[in-house]
Amino acid sequence: MRMYGEFDFIASIREMFADMPKRGFEGIGDDCAVLPMGDEALVFTSDMLNEGIHFLADKSTAYQIGYKSVMVNISDVAAMGAKPVATLLSLALPEERFGEWSEDFMKGYYAASKKYGVKLVGGDTTKSESGVCVSVTAIGRAPKANIKRRKGAKVGDVVMVTGELGASAAGLRDVLAEKLRTRNAKIHLMPEAQVLEGEWLGKQEAVHAMCDISDGVASDLQHILDESKKSAIVSALPVAKGAKWSDAFGGGEDYKLLITVDKSQAEELAKRFERKFGAPLYNIGRITKPNCDVYHIGIEQDNGEVLYSSAGWGGYSHF
Amino acid sequence: MRMYGEFDFIASIREMFADMPKRGFEGIGDDCAVLPMGDEALVFTSDMLNEGIHFLADKSTAYQIGYKSVMVNISDVAAMGAKPVATLLSLALPEERFGEWSEDFMKGYYAASKKYGVKLVGGDTTKSESGVCVSVTAIGRAPKANIKRRKGAKVGDVVMVTGELGASAAGLRDVLAEKLRTRNAKIHLMPEAQVLEGEWLGKQEAVHAMCDISDGVASDLQHILDESKKSAIVSALPVAKGAKWSDAFGGGEDYKLLITVDKSQAEELAKRFERKFGAPLYNIGRITKPNCDVYHIGIEQDNGEVLYSSAGWGGYSHF
Repeated sequence: MRMYGEFDFIASIREMFADMPKRGFEGIGDDCAVLPMGDEALVFTSDMLNEGIHFLADKSTAYQIGYKSVMVNISDVAAMGAKPVATLLSLALPEERFGEWSEDFMKGYYAASKKYGVKLVGGDTTKSESGVCVSVTAIGRAPKANIKRRKGAKVGDVVMVTGELGASAAGLRDVLAEKLRTRNAKIHLMPEAQVLEGEWLGKQEAVHAMCDISDGVASDLQHILDESKKSAIVSALPVAKGAKWSDAFGGGEDYKLLITVDKSQAEELAKRFERKFGAPLYNIGRITKPNCDVYHIGIEQDNGEVLYSSAGWGGYSHF
Repeated sequence: MRMYGEFDFIASIREMFADMPKRGFEGIGDDCAVLPMGDEALVFTSDMLNEGIHFLADKSTAYQIGYKSVMVNISDVAAMGAKPVATLLSLALPEERFGEWSEDFMKGYYAASKKYGVKLVGGDTTKSESGVCVSVTAIGRAPKANIKRRKGAKVGDVVMVTGELGASAAGLRDVLAEKLRTRNAKIHLMPEAQVLEGEWLGKQEAVHAMCDISDGVASDLQHILDESKKSAIVSALPVAKGAKWSDAFGGGEDYKLLITVDKSQAEELAKRFERKFGAPLYNIGRITKPNCDVYHIGIEQDNGEVLYSSAGWGGYSHF
């Protein structure tokens, strides 16, 4: 859920606050902020959904928007290997949306929260002079040893994803074409966070790095590479039915998990994952040494040739 | 920072989530959500500032808005007796505000954060199709025994406030009349949270209940009464220069702290407070028994007569 130029702005913010004491928090650079407390760690994330940018009110129901607001946030918690326990919700609403619309929104918010026992513990509601603006903060907990970070990838690691990709990007096309009831449209409008999968993967020592795929593999794998100071080669992608390869690689909002796994344990982990969740872990590539401090993604072709882009592959953008 | 009808909506949300496990959190009803962890407690609050509702972009500088976004949130943390340690910031910006405006905003955000060592640990930025929307979540920590709640008021307690009231409401009038540089206008545009005062008051056993004054004494004292199941009589108010009595009683955004204090220790506490902070604690009234389960505020007149309002006195509203 990021805008063009956001990364520069975030980088400048990061620099601005670099001189301040950390107050017990780990550094920025993951899906969540991490606060170790004894043997436990708390994780925190905030995501905003804005009318006209993240959803179109005539194409999403209030219920779907409420549902999605929770899922996109607890996906970030799951991506740390933590269990989401609570959210805070800030909601700005135009006057005419108070009443039926806001109640449907809360029903969707409740349904997504209830699914994983995530309690709503606070927030703010206010009038908006313009569109709907939703901001959610999610809080998660985990044993400190379970927390997975982007920076943990090692040379030789197998890169894996927890489900098919591209359905949300294909679904967005359906939605824009007024086909609101296709399977992919539904996935786009009401994504499911991989909460149980994330918590389970947090417990697996073989998993070295993890993040969720909110901006596309091209963008999210790049974050892992930047934080881990590594490169990667992507050799295969599980493309969802109705989606294109480019949807799976560069599309956004799939909310699957991207992990890098110790090579010697990847096959065994995939078996155990499939026994536990009835779905495969897909092997999509491998972590390699960086080339002269350039952390890039190569795309392996059928003939073995590897393509690089000097500009990076980019990720999902709302523009 | 609340809209007309918000309390009903919040009540319905509270009811909706009542059947869910608490996940370690205390119940809703305070300035912050409270998560006890061993001998410590973490507190969480979210507040949203919306263009056209909480600020007018042609009357506030970006710096002031950034500054205020932090202060209104850490005021809620201080009101629990906790020390603010971190914030998450979600920011929706129209395209033309990216650049100079967003940088000034962050300078103000940084200045307010730096003042109390509050680290920015995460968040989200996105484009807005309409105005600026700012949502901040603040995180605080305190020894568990220090946490003050609204529900702690006891019959006979002295009601006190930590500073003069009404300046912000008077300042809002100045701002709307284009007098942007008056003392009160500045207080309205760049409020100061009583962070050190809140943390200190958290350590004082004599303080039974605490909240911040964001919606006016009439509204915020009422929250203490509702949670504590008590009534109160207000006999005096420290009205800021240039403000009216009604600004002090019903105006919003003063961000002073409202406490109820053990009667036998109130005078001593006020002395110690003044020695510590060089400013008085003002005695504004007393907690009384409720009358037939009605928790109301009486206003004591000079002749000793006490006025009640069957409709309640109401608080600050943006409408």
